[in-house]
Amino acid sequence: MPAKAACAGGGEIMIYYSPVMAEENKSSLDALSALAKRRGFIYHSSEIYGGMPGFWDYGPLGCELKQNVKAAWWQFTVRGREDVAGLDATIIMHPKIWKASGHLDTFADPMTMCKDCKKLMRADQIKDIYAEQRKKPQPKVPGSDFFCPHCGGELTEPKPFNLMFKTIVGPIDDPSNVAYLRPETAQAIFAQFLNVLATSRQAVPFGIAQMGKSFRNEVTPRNYIFRSREFEQMELEFFIRPDEAVELLHGHVVTLADNPDLNGPVQDDWGWEVWHKYWVEQRKKFLNAVGLPTERFVEYWQKPDELAHYARACVDIEYDFPFGRQELEGIAARSDFDLTQHQKHSGVPQTVFDDPLKQAAKKLDDAAKAAFIAKVQADWVARGKDALAAEKFCRDLFDGKYVPHVIEPSAGVDRLMLALLCEAYEEQTLKDEKGKDDVRTVLHFSPKVAPVKAAIFPLIKKDEAQMKFARDLFEKLRRKVNVQWDVSGAIGRRYRRQDEAGTPWCITVDAQTVEDGTFTVRERDSMAQTRMTYEQFLAMMYAALEF
Amino acid sequence: MPAKAACAGGGEIMIYYSPVMAEENKSSLDALSALAKRRGFIYHSSEIYGGMPGFWDYGPLGCELKQNVKAAWWQFTVRGREDVAGLDATIIMHPKIWKASGHLDTFADPMTMCKDCKKLMRADQIKDIYAEQRKKPQPKVPGSDFFCPHCGGELTEPKPFNLMFKTIVGPIDDPSNVAYLRPETAQAIFAQFLNVLATSRQAVPFGIAQMGKSFRNEVTPRNYIFRSREFEQMELEFFIRPDEAVELLHGHVVTLADNPDLNGPVQDDWGWEVWHKYWVEQRKKFLNAVGLPTERFVEYWQKPDELAHYARACVDIEYDFPFGRQELEGIAARSDFDLTQHQKHSGVPQTVFDDPLKQAAKKLDDAAKAAFIAKVQADWVARGKDALAAEKFCRDLFDGKYVPHVIEPSAGVDRLMLALLCEAYEEQTLKDEKGKDDVRTVLHFSPKVAPVKAAIFPLIKKDEAQMKFARDLFEKLRRKVNVQWDVSGAIGRRYRRQDEAGTPWCITVDAQTVEDGTFTVRERDSMAQTRMTYEQFLAMMYAALEF
Repeated sequence: MPAKAACAGGGEIMIYYSPVMAEENKSSLDALSALAKRRGFIYHSSEIYGGMPGFWDYGPLGCELKQNVKAAWWQFTVRGREDVAGLDATIIMHPKIWKASGHLDTFADPMTMCKDCKKLMRADQIKDIYAEQRKKPQPKVPGSDFFCPHCGGELTEPKPFNLMFKTIVGPIDDPSNVAYLRPETAQAIFAQFLNVLATSRQAVPFGIAQMGKSFRNEVTPRNYIFRSREFEQMELEFFIRPDEAVELLHGHVVTLADNPDLNGPVQDDWGWEVWHKYWVEQRKKFLNAVGLPTERFVEYWQKPDELAHYARACVDIEYDFPFGRQELEGIAARSDFDLTQHQKHSGVPQTVFDDPLKQAAKKLDDAAKAAFIAKVQADWVARGKDALAAEKFCRDLFDGKYVPHVIEPSAGVDRLMLALLCEAYEEQTLKDEKGKDDVRTVLHFSPKVAPVKAAIFPLIKKDEAQMKFARDLFEKLRRKVNVQWDVSGAIGRRYRRQDEAGTPWCITVDAQTVEDGTFTVRERDSMAQTRMTYEQFLAMMYAALEF
Repeated sequence: MPAKAACAGGGEIMIYYSPVMAEENKSSLDALSALAKRRGFIYHSSEIYGGMPGFWDYGPLGCELKQNVKAAWWQFTVRGREDVAGLDATIIMHPKIWKASGHLDTFADPMTMCKDCKKLMRADQIKDIYAEQRKKPQPKVPGSDFFCPHCGGELTEPKPFNLMFKTIVGPIDDPSNVAYLRPETAQAIFAQFLNVLATSRQAVPFGIAQMGKSFRNEVTPRNYIFRSREFEQMELEFFIRPDEAVELLHGHVVTLADNPDLNGPVQDDWGWEVWHKYWVEQRKKFLNAVGLPTERFVEYWQKPDELAHYARACVDIEYDFPFGRQELEGIAARSDFDLTQHQKHSGVPQTVFDDPLKQAAKKLDDAAKAAFIAKVQADWVARGKDALAAEKFCRDLFDGKYVPHVIEPSAGVDRLMLALLCEAYEEQTLKDEKGKDDVRTVLHFSPKVAPVKAAIFPLIKKDEAQMKFARDLFEKLRRKVNVQWDVSGAIGRRYRRQDEAGTPWCITVDAQTVEDGTFTVRERDSMAQTRMTYEQFLAMMYAALEF
């Protein structure tokens, strides 16, 4: 479970507890990563040069899996909805963005150095290093957290180390030209909020979604592709009305206590609490759709004292990786914190104009308005906020103006890929014809994300009619989805090759095919074989691929 | 036309001539970029903070266009072929890769500074700045290239400025931890050549393809999204046998003089020259398929003295942008230069083992081998290479070993998007019902890349049956492709909205629809309306979208 630390400046920082892996889990990850290397899913970056710690490349099957995960998210989050617009912003942005977000001042790990052996360590990981060390020679000053776990030497005071990669834009190496590689994709969405609002025919409530690379200069990247220095995110900022605006518009605000239907269409009178829970449910549906059953992950609702100061609620969806339970996604209710910060730092108002709200307010007389202000003031003061600010906020609402609040479902592509790989991986012990044990390695991917959708095998390579039918079928299918052609070895061996790649369907063209046009489709998980026509296969495949 | 400069260390560098834009072209680009902003294709990065020169973000329609361009390339280059495997490598790689490629030593622009006004300029652009200045107050020392075009002051000697963005990996700011953002995606393919070869069941000839961000710290980013500092590439390295290996295997090498069929399947006896021309033709087919007719671009074959020392041939595909004719793609025959450089710098042999070649060589007796060696030596010596090296190369070939040669088709996503936007943009003057001029702004995108494939309009919003039919249709279609729903305004206005977005088909659901299930499909370019059923529409759409 990640420990969260809120930081004064703003941006939520996460200091992860990196558990020491138990030996049996290490070996299960070892088997998976060996398969991932052998079948071209994942390689070390720059391997022929000795590698780069914390950087991983995706090979032929890996990049297909990644593209499918991203396409699924995009279809589910953007193309399949009317209330979300897409964005694809640059990795290097104006450095003031990171000042506004808080990343520049507070996105840091505490670092300490041994005065004797000069080793640099993350202060929060010394306990882990100790645990590892206990199996090896004991440190000079055992049991103490305040001495070097490597040599027992004295440690320096922990000092923050910023996790953003720095660079210089333009030819002059000057502090004024420093820029950063984005540590998250979310801030670009806030920075372009007004442009998207003005050009997408959307109105609050609506969302902006972005996928893309982010970079964190992790001191100790660990756990395979789970925590790397270069990774990919899929983030949505869903902008909603402040509850007070919903109250003005509808005379009430629906909360979770009202037991709203979260599976039907979204409703205009939902408060932030319902929107937050709605997105938690949406994200779970997505994870189910790409192949993670609900029983395989844990929904962790952060306790009030774990929340960042501006956050109303935050849910982590956690998965039991071989190296421990870790966060897969987070869904945070971030209030109007981010847009307000950008308003302050850019000087450009981030308010929207909400005509229905203005029309609703027009109907209130002065007494009703005064009563409304008094109610909001009481509520704000109870939450430690300013009464004067509450009044100004209400007056703006009466004019139809406010800074939207936001719900942020944030997912990591690479860690989801790792979870899907862990979930899919199985070594099955079967019996062969002679009754001997036969191990089948199989990746049980959902067809939606499987790198290869189908493989086509002519049964007898030397049979011209079978070859021609199979080849024509292959040519037709590869214009629609990713398919493979395999003519080498016995059919059983060809099945096993595809099992390791996670291919859901293997099509064998045989003597009967040439006569009646049907072929056998062997399903990966059940290994059941069904004869079907091309049209039947297409219908079955499309049904399995659609969201 | 880009001027090319070969550089001693290796990597091909391009110093672009940035033409000064004629006023009429500027305004045509202005109209396009105004539309691109207004309709959410392209925004300045970090606009609320004053922007970042050379960085551009893609809005809701822009990121759909970009995803479609990339998906089209991937389908055409990877999924639609059996001889190309995909790769998705990191942006930050081991710094030795850039030493091996030559980028560290030679990927630089010559920079000069004015000793008086301290302005920094690209030495090769001073002439352009002069041309611009002539419209403004004359410099003190007019007409001379050797004085500052801004103030007439004396200029410093040009000094090279490396175009790679630098950063530090890990917590210690030390020269040993310097790394670079990749200035091209190609080098990752060479660095992972052995891994992909070992894990993809491919054998030479085969290719590895990659799409992704690259970064160049351009001194003067110009021409909208054509030359930016952060951009995206689509690169293929297609590995082939050296001609000598083809000769050994087949007893002959097919050259262009043999007039080979480049439209049929690829052949095992093709020499590098045929493979190069084959890929030029493939790239042209791709450009045609995504909406650039052949007559709209120019194929420029570099002259021998323009080629880098290791290159055998290079073709630029150039397009007439509003700011001049510029390179859209390049297709280079790069010999074995890159893999040999990585072999030298990593110490890891980049040779492949080619069993058919070894078997062919086995059939030669000693005399035939000696004759073969003598022939290769004569050829190498004539090309200024070493006779002893030629003999070693031949002996390796007899063992079935060689470093593959490579053909490199390299394309830029952003500049292709800009070409597609320029090509698609039209302001048509039509006559309205009253015979008055009526301007229609339309983007004539190919359906394959159009951000929105279809828009669904119920004719009468208040007609419940029409609304229900239209809504059901919308729900069905959006599980398949990106579609929009629009109920606001007259049908004519809704058409115009979609014309500006480049949507190929607008579907109107009317009274007849409710009776017989047919609807009108209005085609964007001809504005012709055809009644069809859902099945007819799907068949027409899929036919237009498939490669």
